[in-house]
Amino acid sequence: MSLTLEGTLRERLVRLIGDEFRACEAEIGRELATSPVPLIREISEYVALAGGKRLRPILVLLSARLAGGAPGRATRLGCVVELLHTATLIHDDVVDQAPRRRGRPSANARWGADASVLVGDHLYSRCMALLVGDGDLAVMDSLAAAMVSMTEAEVFQLERKRAGQLTEGDYLRIIRQKTATFMSACCRIGGLAGGLDVPSVEALAVYGERLGIAFQIIDDSLDFDADEVRLGKAIGSDLREGKRTLPLIATIERAAPGERARILATLTPLGSTEADIAEVHRLVKVYDGVGYAVARAAAYAAEGAAQLTRFPPSEAREVLTLIADYVIHRDR
Amino acid sequence: MSLTLEGTLRERLVRLIGDEFRACEAEIGRELATSPVPLIREISEYVALAGGKRLRPILVLLSARLAGGAPGRATRLGCVVELLHTATLIHDDVVDQAPRRRGRPSANARWGADASVLVGDHLYSRCMALLVGDGDLAVMDSLAAAMVSMTEAEVFQLERKRAGQLTEGDYLRIIRQKTATFMSACCRIGGLAGGLDVPSVEALAVYGERLGIAFQIIDDSLDFDADEVRLGKAIGSDLREGKRTLPLIATIERAAPGERARILATLTPLGSTEADIAEVHRLVKVYDGVGYAVARAAAYAAEGAAQLTRFPPSEAREVLTLIADYVIHRDR
Repeated sequence: MSLTLEGTLRERLVRLIGDEFRACEAEIGRELATSPVPLIREISEYVALAGGKRLRPILVLLSARLAGGAPGRATRLGCVVELLHTATLIHDDVVDQAPRRRGRPSANARWGADASVLVGDHLYSRCMALLVGDGDLAVMDSLAAAMVSMTEAEVFQLERKRAGQLTEGDYLRIIRQKTATFMSACCRIGGLAGGLDVPSVEALAVYGERLGIAFQIIDDSLDFDADEVRLGKAIGSDLREGKRTLPLIATIERAAPGERARILATLTPLGSTEADIAEVHRLVKVYDGVGYAVARAAAYAAEGAAQLTRFPPSEAREVLTLIADYVIHRDR
Repeated sequence: MSLTLEGTLRERLVRLIGDEFRACEAEIGRELATSPVPLIREISEYVALAGGKRLRPILVLLSARLAGGAPGRATRLGCVVELLHTATLIHDDVVDQAPRRRGRPSANARWGADASVLVGDHLYSRCMALLVGDGDLAVMDSLAAAMVSMTEAEVFQLERKRAGQLTEGDYLRIIRQKTATFMSACCRIGGLAGGLDVPSVEALAVYGERLGIAFQIIDDSLDFDADEVRLGKAIGSDLREGKRTLPLIATIERAAPGERARILATLTPLGSTEADIAEVHRLVKVYDGVGYAVARAAAYAAEGAAQLTRFPPSEAREVLTLIADYVIHRDR
């Protein structure tokens, strides 16, 4: 089912924005290739060209297309958001000391945390320079606000992790600020670049925000229930890191006191054997933690898609609606 | 001598830009205090309010004053450059795994590398948001270009360190891109905020660049020859980290082959006993590495000060000239 959906989506994307997408890829490649320092090129190309989904530039391009604007600027902005995303991935893996990313050693595992911190910083500053070159204060404002929100949420998440506590409210705040605000900004700047009026830009921004929440909930659910090879990382890695995500939070909420204590003990550092992990997985199945999370995600995605009804029917509107469906039914 | 110079400089600064400086300090404090996440406040206040020299905001304020512009904007921009500087300090200490900064445990030693990476990122994005709020593309362009240059140089420096090689040319490229470009940008944006014409802004930018080179050479020289308590860190810490700076590069250049081999062996990881370090210090004295470095720094500072002669005599011009003198004669 999800393979078919992914195939359909891919086909329609190629037909609708294939040219801009290729131009955007070419711009990302050129931008990375220009650095005079080999280590910057090596690390940033390794992470940026590792076969990510490119969801963020796709949102920029589709939003601009929905607005009917000239594709040139959207292409440049698509490049910027992917480089920003690359910088956050590099730093995230340093912070989590993640050994792997997309089925390969992470940048920090391969080149060290020191080089990864610096190359991430360099990519951030290159993005700022590209945005200044683009020269649109409204676009800069959207992305700067998204970065402030994302980085604030990262620290909040770390604080909660150290406190050993995370409510469903905390979880939603974090994914909203981390993932959803950025996707929302991608839709917003695409709309701005396309020349949409303010209420339409706002509708697109809400679509992107709900989509982002749904996307992240599913991302976290896949950690409990996916094919390792397709996913590119081991199932249960969040759990082994003691990371609490919605399927687990729902399970903790629903479990009996003894079971809850068992789960919480597993989440403490060094607290988990493979048998503990397996038991938590069993409890998540028993209490249908993934089912709860997916239902929440589907509701957010539907809310997002509903925003699109204000736009006249078009290929772009259909594909954006299809993406809201895809983020729920994807298997990687 | 240097104490008197510092005293004179401080007195004249207070008289000339005391009000703006206090306003700038207040703005830094307010900006840090607004974060809703306690860990962000703790770490950023710990580093930003630890008694730094505030050279960068002072350069912004003096440049704006030289231009005769309204102080309001310069105050805000002074706050931005100090927060940017704070972010780079936090990340630098993560990258170097530095245990101490300004006589106290570093942020990474106290709160961990993970929290430090994230809070540094957050400060960068806050600076970007503040600059967007200020709304001047020329100012943003200056600072974005400086950040691109700084972060590129950081990676280049790491690459050279891993290669175990650093020529005087490499060293000068690194300090120019890391320290000097940023100080140059501080002078430039102060001039822009003050409404100076293009050639005058360029002259200020050259002043800031030469000043920055001189500043960093002296910083590196103090590691060989300073009072530990005043400096706030141990003498020879660069050497223990295997960091090659100008006094050492000059010594390696001038030393006999056997001495050179001894120095190079000391710089390799785990290669140095206290006796090795003492021997390198002796050789730096014998070949007057510090004397060579200070002479180079003084030439750069004089070149910078010469740029100021195009401006009509004023208090601001005198104090900027005094700063070019101070960076050479300071003892911390």
